[in-house]
Amino acid sequence: MRFKTHLLFFLSSFVFNYNLNAQNANFQWKRVAPGVWKAIVGKPEQISLLGVAQIKPMQQALEKLGAPAFPKHLTGSKNELTDGKVYLRFPLVKQEQLFGLGLNFKSVQQRGSIKTLHVDHYNGKDDGRTHAPVPFYVSGKGYGILINSARYITVYAGTASRRDSENPPLEMNRNTQKNWDPSPYSDAVEILVPAAGTEVYVFAGKNAMEVVQRYNLYCGGGTLPPKWGLGFTHRTPTLFTDQQVLKEVADFEANGYPLSFVGLEPGWQSYAYPNSFVWDSTRYPKPKAFLDQLKTKNIRANLWINPYVSSHSPIYKNILPYTASHTVWVGVVPDFNTKPAQNLCKGLFTKQHIDLGVSGYKVDETDGYDNWLWPDVAKFPSGFTAEQVRQTYGLQFQKMSSEWFREKNIRTYGLVRASNAGASALPYVIYNDYYNHKDFITALVNSSFIGVLWTPEARSSKTSEEWLRRMQTVCFSPMAMLNAWADGTKPWTFPDVADQVKEVMQLRMQLLPYLYTTFAQYHFEGKPPVRAMNLVEGFSFEDKMVEGKLNSTDNPYAQAVRQDIKDQYMIGDYLLVAPLFAGERTRKVVLPRGKWYDFYTGNLVGEAETIEIDQKAALDRIPLFVKDGGIIPMVPVILHSPLKDQVLPLTVRHYGTLENSWNLYDDDGESFEYEKGIYSFTKLEVKRDINRDLVGNVPVPSTKQIRYNSITWQWMTK
Amino acid sequence: MRFKTHLLFFLSSFVFNYNLNAQNANFQWKRVAPGVWKAIVGKPEQISLLGVAQIKPMQQALEKLGAPAFPKHLTGSKNELTDGKVYLRFPLVKQEQLFGLGLNFKSVQQRGSIKTLHVDHYNGKDDGRTHAPVPFYVSGKGYGILINSARYITVYAGTASRRDSENPPLEMNRNTQKNWDPSPYSDAVEILVPAAGTEVYVFAGKNAMEVVQRYNLYCGGGTLPPKWGLGFTHRTPTLFTDQQVLKEVADFEANGYPLSFVGLEPGWQSYAYPNSFVWDSTRYPKPKAFLDQLKTKNIRANLWINPYVSSHSPIYKNILPYTASHTVWVGVVPDFNTKPAQNLCKGLFTKQHIDLGVSGYKVDETDGYDNWLWPDVAKFPSGFTAEQVRQTYGLQFQKMSSEWFREKNIRTYGLVRASNAGASALPYVIYNDYYNHKDFITALVNSSFIGVLWTPEARSSKTSEEWLRRMQTVCFSPMAMLNAWADGTKPWTFPDVADQVKEVMQLRMQLLPYLYTTFAQYHFEGKPPVRAMNLVEGFSFEDKMVEGKLNSTDNPYAQAVRQDIKDQYMIGDYLLVAPLFAGERTRKVVLPRGKWYDFYTGNLVGEAETIEIDQKAALDRIPLFVKDGGIIPMVPVILHSPLKDQVLPLTVRHYGTLENSWNLYDDDGESFEYEKGIYSFTKLEVKRDINRDLVGNVPVPSTKQIRYNSITWQWMTK
Repeated sequence: MRFKTHLLFFLSSFVFNYNLNAQNANFQWKRVAPGVWKAIVGKPEQISLLGVAQIKPMQQALEKLGAPAFPKHLTGSKNELTDGKVYLRFPLVKQEQLFGLGLNFKSVQQRGSIKTLHVDHYNGKDDGRTHAPVPFYVSGKGYGILINSARYITVYAGTASRRDSENPPLEMNRNTQKNWDPSPYSDAVEILVPAAGTEVYVFAGKNAMEVVQRYNLYCGGGTLPPKWGLGFTHRTPTLFTDQQVLKEVADFEANGYPLSFVGLEPGWQSYAYPNSFVWDSTRYPKPKAFLDQLKTKNIRANLWINPYVSSHSPIYKNILPYTASHTVWVGVVPDFNTKPAQNLCKGLFTKQHIDLGVSGYKVDETDGYDNWLWPDVAKFPSGFTAEQVRQTYGLQFQKMSSEWFREKNIRTYGLVRASNAGASALPYVIYNDYYNHKDFITALVNSSFIGVLWTPEARSSKTSEEWLRRMQTVCFSPMAMLNAWADGTKPWTFPDVADQVKEVMQLRMQLLPYLYTTFAQYHFEGKPPVRAMNLVEGFSFEDKMVEGKLNSTDNPYAQAVRQDIKDQYMIGDYLLVAPLFAGERTRKVVLPRGKWYDFYTGNLVGEAETIEIDQKAALDRIPLFVKDGGIIPMVPVILHSPLKDQVLPLTVRHYGTLENSWNLYDDDGESFEYEKGIYSFTKLEVKRDINRDLVGNVPVPSTKQIRYNSITWQWMTK
Repeated sequence: MRFKTHLLFFLSSFVFNYNLNAQNANFQWKRVAPGVWKAIVGKPEQISLLGVAQIKPMQQALEKLGAPAFPKHLTGSKNELTDGKVYLRFPLVKQEQLFGLGLNFKSVQQRGSIKTLHVDHYNGKDDGRTHAPVPFYVSGKGYGILINSARYITVYAGTASRRDSENPPLEMNRNTQKNWDPSPYSDAVEILVPAAGTEVYVFAGKNAMEVVQRYNLYCGGGTLPPKWGLGFTHRTPTLFTDQQVLKEVADFEANGYPLSFVGLEPGWQSYAYPNSFVWDSTRYPKPKAFLDQLKTKNIRANLWINPYVSSHSPIYKNILPYTASHTVWVGVVPDFNTKPAQNLCKGLFTKQHIDLGVSGYKVDETDGYDNWLWPDVAKFPSGFTAEQVRQTYGLQFQKMSSEWFREKNIRTYGLVRASNAGASALPYVIYNDYYNHKDFITALVNSSFIGVLWTPEARSSKTSEEWLRRMQTVCFSPMAMLNAWADGTKPWTFPDVADQVKEVMQLRMQLLPYLYTTFAQYHFEGKPPVRAMNLVEGFSFEDKMVEGKLNSTDNPYAQAVRQDIKDQYMIGDYLLVAPLFAGERTRKVVLPRGKWYDFYTGNLVGEAETIEIDQKAALDRIPLFVKDGGIIPMVPVILHSPLKDQVLPLTVRHYGTLENSWNLYDDDGESFEYEKGIYSFTKLEVKRDINRDLVGNVPVPSTKQIRYNSITWQWMTK
């Protein structure tokens, strides 16, 4: 099997080297894992994205996924060194769709776009400036390309046409041809890497999903959060005291709203913006006792920080030589490419936070807003450029801080404002200050292509309807979070939707077994927990362009408008989420191949078609649909994530008419013992019996790594 | 005098070299003209902005302007080569204001901004991507800095703080200090030039205006348009025939609306987008006869083009080897850094257009919209990079085409979508597709800092009120243009404001002597025709920041809001224009030092104060104010720009109470004879006689270079 793959590889490399010459060299692809190839162009730089992330490919899982041949579509790829920079070109064919290229908020399909990938706060345009400008794209034709460079890379994703193209567009006369196209056909992705060299990776796959899986597995497999990480989290207002936080926690409990961890925003520490990183003795006189008290209520605590060090921090003097030439809010900027800077933070953070029971961090302002951060002329003691540090700072903090927890054999799950390639295995969820609800959902869709997690956090709302819609969608995301740092909002702030908000928060908790297994699929198989429709088998939606109308003020080039499915997504294998937004009473839902059922009623809603759903009668629930045969394990309503050895009864829902089986994952939910094989997959299986009735098995767990004491099957579709 | 300057220069260079060292070298400033210094950093590239513009400094005018010392504020400037790039730093002091840095549409004062200067279509943010990303800034402290590099330069205009700053901001604690500032004080402009070297120029001046003058004079003095260029221009719809254009011209005449030149949009040529550059034989069977017929009516014709060559163009085959690797709308992209490409265009354009009587061009799509143009990985036969060509393409086309006219001793005045540093002397006005009326006016304000001209063209409007407002402002701009290419709008399209539109168009024509002299000041003294208030003597407006309000959704960092005067400006020495925008009935006007008078009535309106004007009673006129002592020469209403030897009577208005004198410029209005001294300045002088009454002189012209047969003084303020 292996031999065959190698043979294929050498054969194909023979084919695609036909045009090799010094000036415009083809790539020398080297297989680095099954279905993964790497090429070196020029002289790669010392710092790279995967290097900073210290990825450890999941070799076994990659083997299991199979060893496809080198993608034939990439025959004819070219690279060249010009002007001290790397120029790359990868062919495209007609109808080929491209996904990824960073955490985009407006569009899913990226063919036809130009981006300069640059870590920054997202500011309203899919131009490459975003929190995770991952230089990775996935083709619908079944391959992915990663540029492993920590530079501001410019990607022309099928926008440019060359004179020497083998598939040149036809010249048209705008004077006489009504179908004149302002964007003539382009047969290639072209990329400018502003560095003297880079690594380029190719990931193969039979479809986009398999490419993404391979990418995630190569990056170390998706992160598996602790169980508490998938519960509900509430970030309390700035300057809250320990007593106020405890009161907030008690209010959640008293009102019946789930809560698994709280976030402490600025004010827990003595100095912030820049940061002392030590507790404020007036607001938190006894942090250990406070954290212990939270723990007795089964509540974890996450700390807001940004990495910029105040002169009042105990590490200030020692870290000074390992900081940048420029400051951020007058705080010094540790160069985490230096060991002393890493160690000083590790020492302080471990002693002040982790040893006391802090569960994780919210790492703010590693992205930019551009104006806040160091300029590109800043200098760092490691010798890396400001640009390189900018592209990797959030990634590095994730890697570094997750190791602090790993060394103690406890999982963390935190928030970060900046990430990049290689982040799949890092236990962080991206968030930002941008607050467009629809765009938040598109970001959720796009996160699935690039190995990052994203939360469309709820902060405040103008109306109760908006509040409900936001709380509903955040409950169907990798981190169900209310961020009340500035507004002091509570889940029950809008009384007329307080019950509906409670219902969706409770539903989140009931779905924990499903969600946890979905994340286990991320870890073991590389399948992202949230999945763009374009990653779903049987989903077919042509990249249609709707004819543009000429308009001298708004559309002088009569640009066509792209149709994109960017407001619905899957969570895990079976659950299709189709959010409603404030002001909407109906919406279209595109159903992939097969029959689909209403999550709440089990009723058939459609099959491989676009349906219009009408929520006039049921405004209070988020539209959810389940694939035919879908198996959804649920627990009773719980207000906190289950404790390590807490045992719960399981109700397993089955939808539709198909026989099916699904592996339910479980482990201790807190430690890294699962990496040593201490976990279980329990096969939940539905078959038709002799009477053609559906029957579910009641498996006996093979290990004690399952924490459910009974299984009841529920047949949702009668 | 010269000697003294040199001595000063050497003395000061001694002072500001104190910190010279290899790693972080100070500049070696070399005086290149009075008040102008140049330094070489690293190894400058072969192509530069001023090089492409082929600037010819106006040595005599520069001498006349004086020889100030090297700006002491720039002591302590630094440069450094790192990562193959140039890092620059120039000090700032408190309260120092910065202007320029490209054609910005939203803001006038640029301190606190970050820009990557990149030729592109302006797309709603002052982030450096614009039609004229001129890397030149002017300080209110009396100096200007130009980075003469054809690269995407990033400028941190007082945003970054360094650890080693001598004026570091104080560290604050956002937890406890309400006045915590998200943008701590920065004491420097820092610049990244992504090239191994660059030239840097310093321009001195006693104030911002003198700096701008020196910059413009160094670039060759401002352009002096032909007289017809300052009349009214109407761009006829695409695909119009010769007969339709003539009909349009006749309609203007019949309805009493002024017109000096028409613009032919796509359709005059046989193929467009890309372009054949030859007349379409169906729509324009006899172009010479058509142009001659226009000429008999004293109407010039301007041709729309973009530079991308169709396979149907006669020059296609020959130009092919001198074109880029990539195409634009399938047209080939001439590399005008090669002589053959220049010559082929010159040959075709001269024969097909200029020899037939075409007066100039509208050069479209040299800016980008990014997606349309070649990618940064394109290659050009000259060996210059795509980035360098992008930054200079519009500039180069301006230079090249203006020479075609100059060789025939006729002036041109055209339109262009892309420009850059060194453009002052080039006879082109920038326009674009963006259509925000207020932002159009801010661009007008900003054009005055960077040696470019801009027109806030009128195309269409939703309401008659908006139409009137747009037509009013365009009449107070360097090119009074109705661009009806897509909409077919006429000045009289909105009947209820048709008379008011006619009035302002006629007023434009009456003001021609004032406007022409204003442009002569641009040429001979470097004073821009449109002037930002910040360039006006006696204007003082502090760069106030209004405290920002914390808001989790819109303003999470409680950013302060900058107050900026960006909606009023001066034309020439005396006329203050304060446009109204659709929906506005009142507005504030900031009056500089001295008394100011209403243009229409001569009444005093205020003195060094902010007034609120109320247009409820007079909605139909654009608010105009005249400085005390203001002298405004006017001619009777004319429908076309005066012919070469046409003689007109002159009415000279005087406003206010001050004695004054002003030099009225005149020449033949068409040729370059003025460069040989064939022009006149006529001193218009107002003095108080023995009875303390104001009396105006009636000068006898010293040369025949004045085309006014009588002068009548009009005392506007009784």
